[in-house]
Amino acid sequence: MPHLYLEYSDNLAGFDAATALQQANLALEASGQFSEIDIKSRASMVSCYQVGTARDPQRAFIHARLAILEGRSEAVQQTLAQLVLDALLVHCPADPAQDVQVSCEIQQIARASYAKQHRHGQP
Amino acid sequence: MPHLYLEYSDNLAGFDAATALQQANLALEASGQFSEIDIKSRASMVSCYQVGTARDPQRAFIHARLAILEGRSEAVQQTLAQLVLDALLVHCPADPAQDVQVSCEIQQIARASYAKQHRHGQP
Amino acid sequence: MPHLYLEYSDNLAGFDAATALQQANLALEASGQFSEIDIKSRASMVSCYQVGTARDPQRAFIHARLAILEGRSEAVQQTLAQLVLDALLVHCPADPAQDVQVSCEIQQIARASYAKQHRHGQP
Repeated sequence: MPHLYLEYSDNLAGFDAATALQQANLALEASGQFSEIDIKSRASMVSCYQVGTARDPQRAFIHARLAILEGRSEAVQQTLAQLVLDALLVHCPADPAQDVQVSCEIQQIARASYAKQHRHGQP
Repeated sequence: MPHLYLEYSDNLAGFDAATALQQANLALEASGQFSEIDIKSRASMVSCYQVGTARDPQRAFIHARLAILEGRSEAVQQTLAQLVLDALLVHCPADPAQDVQVSCEIQQIARASYAKQHRHGQP
Repeated sequence: MPHLYLEYSDNLAGFDAATALQQANLALEASGQFSEIDIKSRASMVSCYQVGTARDPQRAFIHARLAILEGRSEAVQQTLAQLVLDALLVHCPADPAQDVQVSCEIQQIARASYAKQHRHGQP
Protein backbone atom coordinates (compact mmCIF):
# COMPACT_ATOMS: atom_id res chain seq x y z
CA MET A 1 0.00 0.00 0.00
CA PRO A 2 -0.88 2.51 -1.13
CA HIS A 3 -2.43 1.51 -4.43
CA LEU A 4 -3.53 4.22 -6.82
CA TYR A 5 -6.02 3.43 -9.59
CA LEU A 6 -6.43 6.04 -12.29
CA GLU A 7 -9.03 5.99 -15.03
CA TYR A 8 -9.78 8.47 -17.78
CA SER A 9 -12.17 8.67 -20.67
CA ASP A 10 -10.65 8.27 -24.12
CA ASN A 11 -11.89 11.62 -25.40
CA LEU A 12 -9.18 13.36 -23.37
CA ALA A 13 -6.73 13.68 -26.21
CA GLY A 14 -3.34 14.59 -24.93
CA PHE A 15 -3.79 13.41 -21.37
CA ASP A 16 -0.41 11.95 -20.46
CA ALA A 17 -1.38 9.27 -17.95
CA ALA A 18 2.15 8.02 -17.36
CA THR A 19 3.39 11.46 -16.41
CA ALA A 20 0.33 12.10 -14.26
CA LEU A 21 1.00 8.85 -12.40
CA GLN A 22 4.58 9.82 -11.78
CA GLN A 23 3.56 13.23 -10.48
CA ALA A 24 0.94 11.68 -8.21
CA ASN A 25 3.52 9.26 -6.81
CA LEU A 26 5.96 12.11 -6.17
CA ALA A 27 3.27 13.97 -4.27
CA LEU A 28 2.35 10.88 -2.25
CA GLU A 29 5.97 10.27 -1.34
CA ALA A 30 6.41 13.92 -0.36
CA SER A 31 3.43 13.60 1.99
CA GLY A 32 5.64 11.56 4.30
CA GLN A 33 2.92 8.96 4.76
CA PHE A 34 4.44 6.17 2.67
CA SER A 35 7.65 4.44 1.76
CA GLU A 36 8.64 5.25 -1.79
CA ILE A 37 8.74 1.67 -3.03
CA ASP A 38 5.30 0.88 -1.62
CA ILE A 39 3.45 3.35 -3.84
CA LYS A 40 1.98 1.29 -6.67
CA SER A 41 -0.02 3.14 -9.29
CA ARG A 42 -1.63 2.23 -12.56
CA ALA A 43 -3.76 3.99 -15.17
CA SER A 44 -6.25 2.74 -17.70
CA MET A 45 -8.13 4.48 -20.45
CA VAL A 46 -11.81 3.64 -20.75
CA SER A 47 -13.38 3.63 -24.17
CA CYS A 48 -16.90 2.51 -23.19
CA TYR A 49 -18.36 5.08 -20.81
CA GLN A 50 -21.35 7.31 -20.23
CA VAL A 51 -21.43 10.58 -18.29
CA GLY A 52 -24.99 11.38 -17.29
CA THR A 53 -27.73 10.47 -19.71
CA ALA A 54 -27.03 12.75 -22.66
CA ARG A 55 -24.91 11.56 -25.56
CA ASP A 56 -22.46 14.45 -25.32
CA PRO A 57 -18.99 13.73 -26.74
CA GLN A 58 -17.57 16.72 -24.83
CA ARG A 59 -18.12 15.13 -21.45
CA ALA A 60 -14.97 13.61 -19.99
CA PHE A 61 -13.63 12.44 -16.68
CA ILE A 62 -10.47 11.53 -14.83
CA HIS A 63 -10.98 9.58 -11.64
CA ALA A 64 -8.52 8.27 -9.08
CA ARG A 65 -9.05 5.82 -6.27
CA LEU A 66 -6.36 5.81 -3.63
CA ALA A 67 -6.42 2.71 -1.43
CA ILE A 68 -4.54 3.08 1.84
CA LEU A 69 -4.29 1.02 4.97
CA GLU A 70 -6.81 2.10 7.57
CA GLY A 71 -5.92 4.20 10.58
CA ARG A 72 -4.96 7.59 9.17
CA SER A 73 -6.88 10.64 10.36
CA GLU A 74 -9.61 12.22 8.28
CA ALA A 75 -7.43 15.29 7.85
CA VAL A 76 -4.57 13.22 6.45
CA GLN A 77 -6.97 11.45 4.11
CA GLN A 78 -8.32 14.78 2.86
CA THR A 79 -4.78 15.99 2.24
CA LEU A 80 -3.88 12.87 0.28
CA ALA A 81 -6.96 13.12 -1.94
CA GLN A 82 -6.21 16.76 -2.63
CA LEU A 83 -2.57 16.00 -3.46
CA VAL A 84 -3.63 13.44 -6.04
CA LEU A 85 -6.32 15.73 -7.43
CA ASP A 86 -3.81 18.55 -7.81
CA ALA A 87 -1.38 16.27 -9.63
CA LEU A 88 -4.12 15.25 -12.04
CA LEU A 89 -5.31 18.80 -12.64
CA VAL A 90 -1.81 19.84 -13.74
CA HIS A 91 -2.04 17.31 -16.56
CA CYS A 92 -5.72 17.66 -17.41
CA PRO A 93 -6.02 18.90 -20.99
CA ALA A 94 -7.34 22.44 -21.17
CA ASP A 95 -9.89 22.32 -23.95
CA PRO A 96 -12.46 25.00 -23.16
CA ALA A 97 -15.14 23.11 -25.07
CA GLN A 98 -14.83 20.03 -22.88
CA ASP A 99 -16.70 19.41 -19.68
CA VAL A 100 -14.24 17.51 -17.50
CA GLN A 101 -14.80 16.09 -14.03
CA VAL A 102 -11.62 15.26 -12.15
CA SER A 103 -11.92 13.48 -8.82
CA CYS A 104 -10.16 11.39 -6.21
CA GLU A 105 -11.64 9.09 -3.60
CA ILE A 106 -9.91 7.47 -0.64
CA GLN A 107 -10.58 3.84 0.16
CA GLN A 108 -9.40 2.41 3.46
CA ILE A 109 -8.15 -1.17 3.44
CA ALA A 110 -8.37 -3.47 6.43
CA ARG A 111 -4.92 -3.79 7.92
CA ALA A 112 -5.38 -7.14 9.66
CA SER A 113 -6.22 -9.03 6.49
CA TYR A 114 -3.73 -7.39 4.15
CA ALA A 115 -1.26 -10.01 2.96
CA LYS A 116 1.92 -9.15 1.12
CA GLN A 117 5.27 -10.54 0.13
CA HIS A 118 8.08 -8.45 -1.29
CA ARG A 119 10.75 -10.22 -3.33
CA HIS A 120 13.58 -7.76 -3.47
CA GLY A 121 15.58 -7.79 -6.67
CA GLN A 122 19.26 -8.64 -6.56
CA PRO A 123 21.39 -6.10 -8.39
CA MET B 1 -20.29 10.54 -7.63
CA PRO B 2 -21.82 8.19 -8.33
CA HIS B 3 -19.34 6.06 -10.22
CA LEU B 4 -20.58 2.88 -11.88
CA TYR B 5 -18.12 0.15 -12.86
CA LEU B 6 -19.44 -2.57 -15.13
CA GLU B 7 -17.59 -5.72 -16.09
CA TYR B 8 -18.66 -8.67 -18.19
CA SER B 9 -17.07 -11.85 -19.41
CA ASP B 10 -16.23 -11.98 -23.10
CA ASN B 11 -18.32 -15.07 -23.78
CA LEU B 12 -21.48 -12.96 -23.60
CA ALA B 13 -21.80 -12.46 -27.32
CA GLY B 14 -24.26 -9.74 -28.09
CA PHE B 15 -24.13 -7.98 -24.74
CA ASP B 16 -24.39 -4.30 -25.62
CA ALA B 17 -22.45 -2.70 -22.80
CA ALA B 18 -22.84 0.86 -24.06
CA THR B 19 -26.61 0.59 -24.15
CA ALA B 20 -26.67 -1.12 -20.77
CA LEU B 21 -24.65 1.74 -19.30
CA GLN B 22 -27.01 4.28 -20.73
CA GLN B 23 -30.02 2.46 -19.33
CA ALA B 24 -28.38 2.18 -15.93
CA ASN B 25 -27.63 5.89 -15.92
CA LEU B 26 -31.22 6.69 -16.86
CA ALA B 27 -32.43 4.55 -13.96
CA LEU B 28 -30.01 6.20 -11.55
CA GLU B 29 -31.09 9.66 -12.64
CA ALA B 30 -34.75 8.67 -12.30
CA SER B 31 -34.08 7.59 -8.72
CA GLY B 32 -33.82 11.23 -7.78
CA GLN B 33 -30.67 10.59 -5.77
CA PHE B 34 -28.16 12.16 -8.13
CA SER B 35 -27.54 15.05 -10.48
CA GLU B 36 -27.55 13.88 -14.07
CA ILE B 37 -24.07 15.14 -14.92
CA ASP B 38 -22.52 13.48 -11.86
CA ILE B 39 -23.32 9.93 -12.96
CA LYS B 40 -20.10 8.57 -14.45
CA SER B 41 -20.19 5.01 -15.74
CA ARG B 42 -17.79 2.79 -17.60
CA ALA B 43 -17.76 -0.79 -18.84
CA SER B 44 -14.98 -3.20 -19.58
CA MET B 45 -14.97 -6.66 -21.07
CA VAL B 46 -12.77 -9.22 -19.33
CA SER B 47 -11.14 -11.90 -21.39
CA CYS B 48 -9.14 -13.62 -18.64
CA TYR B 49 -11.56 -14.93 -16.04
CA GLN B 50 -12.58 -18.02 -14.13
CA VAL B 51 -16.01 -18.83 -12.68
CA GLY B 52 -15.68 -21.48 -10.02
CA THR B 53 -13.13 -24.19 -10.57
CA ALA B 54 -14.49 -26.01 -13.60
CA ARG B 55 -13.36 -25.07 -17.11
CA ASP B 56 -16.87 -24.47 -18.38
CA PRO B 57 -17.12 -22.10 -21.35
CA GLN B 58 -20.83 -21.62 -20.68
CA ARG B 59 -20.28 -19.81 -17.42
CA ALA B 60 -20.55 -16.05 -17.73
CA PHE B 61 -21.03 -13.03 -15.53
CA ILE B 62 -21.97 -9.37 -15.55
CA HIS B 63 -21.04 -7.46 -12.44
CA ALA B 64 -21.59 -3.84 -11.47
CA ARG B 65 -20.09 -1.86 -8.63
CA LEU B 66 -21.89 1.35 -7.80
CA ALA B 67 -19.81 3.73 -5.69
CA ILE B 68 -21.85 6.40 -3.92
CA LEU B 69 -21.08 8.94 -1.25
CA GLU B 70 -21.87 7.62 2.20
CA GLY B 71 -24.96 8.63 4.13
CA ARG B 72 -27.85 7.13 2.20
CA SER B 73 -30.17 4.71 3.99
CA GLU B 74 -29.91 0.98 3.55
CA ALA B 75 -33.30 1.00 1.82
CA VAL B 76 -32.12 3.56 -0.71
CA GLN B 77 -28.97 1.56 -1.32
CA GLN B 78 -30.99 -1.60 -1.90
CA THR B 79 -33.18 0.25 -4.36
CA LEU B 80 -30.19 1.59 -6.29
CA ALA B 81 -28.59 -1.85 -6.57
CA GLN B 82 -31.86 -3.30 -7.80
CA LEU B 83 -32.29 -0.53 -10.37
CA VAL B 84 -28.86 -1.24 -11.81
CA LEU B 85 -29.44 -4.98 -11.75
CA ASP B 86 -32.74 -4.57 -13.60
CA ALA B 87 -31.08 -2.41 -16.24
CA LEU B 88 -28.44 -5.07 -16.78
CA LEU B 89 -30.94 -7.92 -16.92
CA VAL B 90 -32.81 -6.22 -19.75
CA HIS B 91 -29.67 -6.41 -21.85
CA CYS B 92 -28.35 -9.75 -20.68
CA PRO B 93 -28.23 -12.14 -23.65
CA ALA B 94 -30.80 -14.90 -23.36
CA ASP B 95 -28.89 -18.00 -24.37
CA PRO B 96 -30.51 -20.92 -22.52
CA ALA B 97 -27.28 -22.90 -22.62
CA GLN B 98 -25.38 -20.24 -20.71
CA ASP B 99 -25.10 -20.01 -16.95
CA VAL B 100 -25.02 -16.27 -16.26
CA GLN B 101 -24.60 -14.52 -12.92
CA VAL B 102 -25.63 -10.87 -12.94
CA SER B 103 -24.97 -8.80 -9.83
CA CYS B 104 -24.58 -5.33 -8.40
CA GLU B 105 -22.82 -4.25 -5.24
CA ILE B 106 -22.93 -0.86 -3.52
CA GLN B 107 -19.74 0.70 -2.23
CA GLN B 108 -19.93 3.71 0.05
CA ILE B 109 -17.25 6.35 -0.37
CA ALA B 110 -16.06 8.59 2.44
CA ARG B 111 -17.51 12.05 1.91
CA ALA B 112 -14.94 14.03 3.89
CA SER B 113 -12.01 12.91 1.77
CA TYR B 114 -13.66 13.01 -1.64
CA ALA B 115 -11.92 15.63 -3.76
CA LYS B 116 -13.31 16.87 -7.04
CA GLN B 117 -13.04 19.68 -9.54
CA HIS B 118 -15.49 20.19 -12.37
CA ARG B 119 -14.32 22.22 -15.37
CA HIS B 120 -17.50 23.15 -17.14
CA GLY B 121 -17.25 23.30 -20.89
CA GLN B 122 -17.91 26.59 -22.67
CA PRO B 123 -20.35 26.20 -25.52
CA MET C 1 -19.65 -13.32 -4.22
CA PRO C 2 -16.80 -13.65 -3.85
CA HIS C 3 -15.27 -11.57 -6.61
CA LEU C 4 -11.53 -11.73 -7.13
CA TYR C 5 -9.75 -8.97 -9.07
CA LEU C 6 -6.19 -9.66 -10.10
CA GLU C 7 -3.82 -7.16 -11.67
CA TYR C 8 -0.21 -7.48 -12.70
CA SER C 9 2.38 -5.28 -14.33
CA ASP C 10 3.29 -6.17 -17.90
CA ASN C 11 6.99 -6.59 -17.16
CA LEU C 12 6.25 -9.94 -15.51
CA ALA C 13 7.08 -12.03 -18.53
CA GLY C 14 5.84 -15.53 -18.08
CA PHE C 15 3.22 -14.83 -15.43
CA ASP C 16 0.36 -17.15 -16.32
CA ALA C 17 -2.63 -15.21 -15.05
CA ALA C 18 -5.22 -17.76 -16.17
CA THR C 19 -3.54 -20.56 -14.25
CA ALA C 20 -3.03 -18.32 -11.22
CA LEU C 21 -6.74 -17.50 -11.24
CA GLN C 22 -7.66 -21.14 -11.39
CA GLN C 23 -5.36 -21.98 -8.50
CA ALA C 24 -6.75 -19.10 -6.44
CA ASN C 25 -10.29 -20.30 -7.09
CA LEU C 26 -9.38 -23.84 -6.06
CA ALA C 27 -7.93 -22.49 -2.82
CA LEU C 28 -11.01 -20.37 -2.17
CA GLU C 29 -13.31 -23.31 -2.75
CA ALA C 30 -11.18 -25.51 -0.48
CA SER C 31 -11.55 -22.92 2.28
CA GLY C 32 -15.15 -24.05 2.68
CA GLN C 33 -16.37 -20.46 2.79
CA PHE C 34 -17.97 -20.31 -0.66
CA SER C 35 -20.02 -22.23 -3.17
CA GLU C 36 -17.90 -23.24 -6.11
CA ILE C 37 -20.04 -21.55 -8.75
CA ASP C 38 -20.10 -18.24 -6.85
CA ILE C 39 -16.36 -17.64 -7.10
CA LYS C 40 -15.90 -15.17 -9.96
CA SER C 41 -12.37 -14.10 -10.76
CA ARG C 42 -10.73 -12.03 -13.44
CA ALA C 43 -7.25 -10.82 -14.25
CA SER C 44 -5.95 -7.86 -16.19
CA MET C 45 -2.47 -6.85 -17.19
CA VAL C 46 -1.58 -3.20 -16.70
CA SER C 47 0.80 -1.57 -19.12
CA CYS C 48 0.74 1.97 -17.71
CA TYR C 49 2.00 1.86 -14.12
CA GLN C 50 4.53 3.39 -11.77
CA VAL C 51 6.03 1.76 -8.68
CA GLY C 52 7.45 4.43 -6.39
CA THR C 53 9.04 7.45 -8.02
CA ALA C 54 12.07 5.95 -9.74
CA ARG C 55 11.87 4.85 -13.37
CA ASP C 56 13.04 1.33 -12.67
CA PRO C 57 11.96 -1.29 -15.23
CA GLN C 58 12.72 -4.07 -12.75
CA ARG C 59 9.93 -3.09 -10.39
CA ALA C 60 6.84 -5.22 -10.78
CA PHE C 61 3.70 -6.08 -8.88
CA ILE C 62 0.85 -8.55 -8.67
CA HIS C 63 -2.13 -7.39 -6.64
CA ALA C 64 -5.39 -9.11 -5.79
CA ARG C 65 -8.53 -7.68 -4.30
CA LEU C 66 -10.92 -10.23 -2.88
CA ALA C 67 -14.43 -8.86 -2.35
CA ILE C 68 -16.55 -10.93 0.03
CA LEU C 69 -19.87 -10.38 1.72
CA GLU C 70 -19.46 -8.87 5.17
CA GLY C 71 -19.76 -10.87 8.35
CA ARG C 72 -16.79 -13.21 8.33
CA SER C 73 -14.35 -13.06 11.25
CA GLU C 74 -11.05 -11.28 10.99
CA ALA C 75 -9.27 -14.62 11.29
CA VAL C 76 -11.19 -16.04 8.33
CA GLN C 77 -10.43 -12.93 6.31
CA GLN C 78 -6.73 -13.23 7.10
CA THR C 79 -6.79 -16.87 6.03
CA LEU C 80 -8.49 -16.04 2.74
CA ALA C 81 -5.99 -13.31 1.90
CA GLN C 82 -3.11 -15.63 2.66
CA LEU C 83 -4.61 -18.41 0.52
CA VAL C 84 -4.83 -16.08 -2.45
CA LEU C 85 -1.35 -14.71 -1.84
CA ASP C 86 0.08 -18.21 -1.70
CA ALA C 87 -1.64 -19.14 -4.97
CA LEU C 88 -0.12 -16.07 -6.62
CA LEU C 89 3.35 -16.69 -5.24
CA VAL C 90 3.42 -20.16 -6.78
CA HIS C 91 3.04 -18.56 -10.19
CA CYS C 92 5.13 -15.44 -9.65
CA PRO C 93 8.07 -15.51 -12.07
CA ALA C 94 11.36 -16.04 -10.28
CA ASP C 95 13.68 -13.55 -11.92
CA PRO C 96 16.29 -12.62 -9.31
CA ALA C 97 16.84 -9.23 -10.94
CA GLN C 98 13.22 -8.20 -10.49
CA ASP C 99 11.77 -6.48 -7.46
CA VAL C 100 8.25 -7.89 -7.19
CA GLN C 101 5.55 -6.97 -4.69
CA VAL C 102 2.73 -9.51 -4.43
CA SER C 103 -0.26 -8.63 -2.28
CA CYS C 104 -3.89 -9.37 -1.51
CA GLU C 105 -6.46 -7.15 0.17
CA ILE C 106 -9.90 -8.12 1.44
CA GLN C 107 -12.85 -5.86 0.78
CA GLN C 108 -16.12 -6.46 2.59
CA ILE C 109 -19.30 -5.85 0.64
CA ALA C 110 -22.55 -4.77 2.25
CA ARG C 111 -24.88 -7.74 2.33
CA ALA C 112 -28.18 -5.86 2.50
CA SER C 113 -27.65 -4.01 -0.76
CA TYR C 114 -26.08 -6.80 -2.79
CA ALA C 115 -28.39 -7.64 -5.68
CA LYS C 116 -27.96 -10.72 -7.82
CA GLN C 117 -29.75 -12.92 -10.29
CA HIS C 118 -28.45 -16.27 -11.44
CA ARG C 119 -29.74 -17.62 -14.74
CA HIS C 120 -28.84 -21.28 -14.65
CA GLY C 121 -27.93 -22.78 -17.98
CA GLN C 122 -30.03 -25.61 -19.40
CA PRO C 123 -27.89 -28.53 -20.51
